[in-house]
Amino acid sequence: MLNRLRVRFSKDRKFGESLRNILGFYPRNVALYRKAFTHSSAALEIKEGVKDSYERLEFLGDAVLGTVIADYLFKKFPYKDEGFLTKMRSKIVSRVQLNKLSVRFGLQKFIEADFGFSKNNHSVNGDVFEALIGAIYLDKGYDFTRRFIQDKVIQDHLDIEEIEQTETDFKSKFIEWAQKEKKVFSFVVVDEIMNGSERQYIIEARIDQQVLGKGQSISKKKAEQIASEQALARLGS
Amino acid sequence: MLNRLRVRFSKDRKFGESLRNILGFYPRNVALYRKAFTHSSAALEIKEGVKDSYERLEFLGDAVLGTVIADYLFKKFPYKDEGFLTKMRSKIVSRVQLNKLSVRFGLQKFIEADFGFSKNNHSVNGDVFEALIGAIYLDKGYDFTRRFIQDKVIQDHLDIEEIEQTETDFKSKFIEWAQKEKKVFSFVVVDEIMNGSERQYIIEARIDQQVLGKGQSISKKKAEQIASEQALARLGS
Repeated sequence: MLNRLRVRFSKDRKFGESLRNILGFYPRNVALYRKAFTHSSAALEIKEGVKDSYERLEFLGDAVLGTVIADYLFKKFPYKDEGFLTKMRSKIVSRVQLNKLSVRFGLQKFIEADFGFSKNNHSVNGDVFEALIGAIYLDKGYDFTRRFIQDKVIQDHLDIEEIEQTETDFKSKFIEWAQKEKKVFSFVVVDEIMNGSERQYIIEARIDQQVLGKGQSISKKKAEQIASEQALARLGS
Repeated sequence: MLNRLRVRFSKDRKFGESLRNILGFYPRNVALYRKAFTHSSAALEIKEGVKDSYERLEFLGDAVLGTVIADYLFKKFPYKDEGFLTKMRSKIVSRVQLNKLSVRFGLQKFIEADFGFSKNNHSVNGDVFEALIGAIYLDKGYDFTRRFIQDKVIQDHLDIEEIEQTETDFKSKFIEWAQKEKKVFSFVVVDEIMNGSERQYIIEARIDQQVLGKGQSISKKKAEQIASEQALARLGS
């Protein structure tokens, strides 16, 4: 019993120290961080149907991250309107960006998942990054988390000016995905609707004739963008 | 000059005291709260194309409110999964709910808007409520705002158990809206798509033959719900 406690304690300490090397601080409640890295395939059931995995922390971390980024952008761009702020934030917290951040922080090695589950699974890296933010928030409070995100995430890893320049081009990404996976993609105008005196196009993004996204806009380009964004979300890319 | 300052000072003090009566604390930076109640129709332009109105604060407040509610639900429901938490949160911060809260707090009387703009405008109340949260956050910090929302908003004004029971029924709301406005509404199955072996229905929600929302699902009911939700968003309800 004592021995088991000793093993547990030493494992926790090692994990805590690895985290310190990456995050720059030593966690108080190590169990929270363990949970942040536990995929449901490797998690225990704490109650019928509810697993002790990272999803709940991810929900919390997603909100905290969104608020800290909102605060940062609000202050950095005092003369930009809410449309700009919203767009910038969604670029910063996009799946692609979060996956990248997770890899840069080297979080992959902490992920606990069952055999047969690939750690390279598209979105698990980003999920775990958000869950980690949730764990830090519960462990250390909001102000600490805000400073961590500003200093260690934004400052060290994000190029805000570059992100500002990048137009999110969902159509290109959708086509890239299809080409990589060797699938046949198509964009099909399936309907034109008169909205008052405005003509709106409804365009579907398809993979192998299967509809994965639909966009509606007065501009065909814009409708394709919306359809592609939807399709990518469905593909988890 | 001195006189003008005196008038300004006395106006600020009166405003600050009215706020204290409603919020339970005296604001530090009164100007922030003024901005939170200023609709763009009554706002000055601070830079070309950017008005000194509540929209930026609303963007910030929306994020802060979402985080505080996430934190609250995370702790209140330790055995519920992230799907439940997400759904509960979106019910709590729905337009309808925020408009109600705004009216309950009596925020309407503070709203500065130009003549010809109706304060009864559907969503301005909720917008202003979120902007107020943004102002409190900037003025007093996150922890203060969290306590304010938990004690003065959730505790005093929300019935979490009741909200948990309520299913958000967008279809009924859409029909109610149409009947109130004496418009002809319809739901039309415009397409059926085979998705693998699954049949998906595409259903449009229309007002006077104009398409306002489209839903896609294997269940007709669900597709109608999605179409109605989209239509309501477009109608600003």
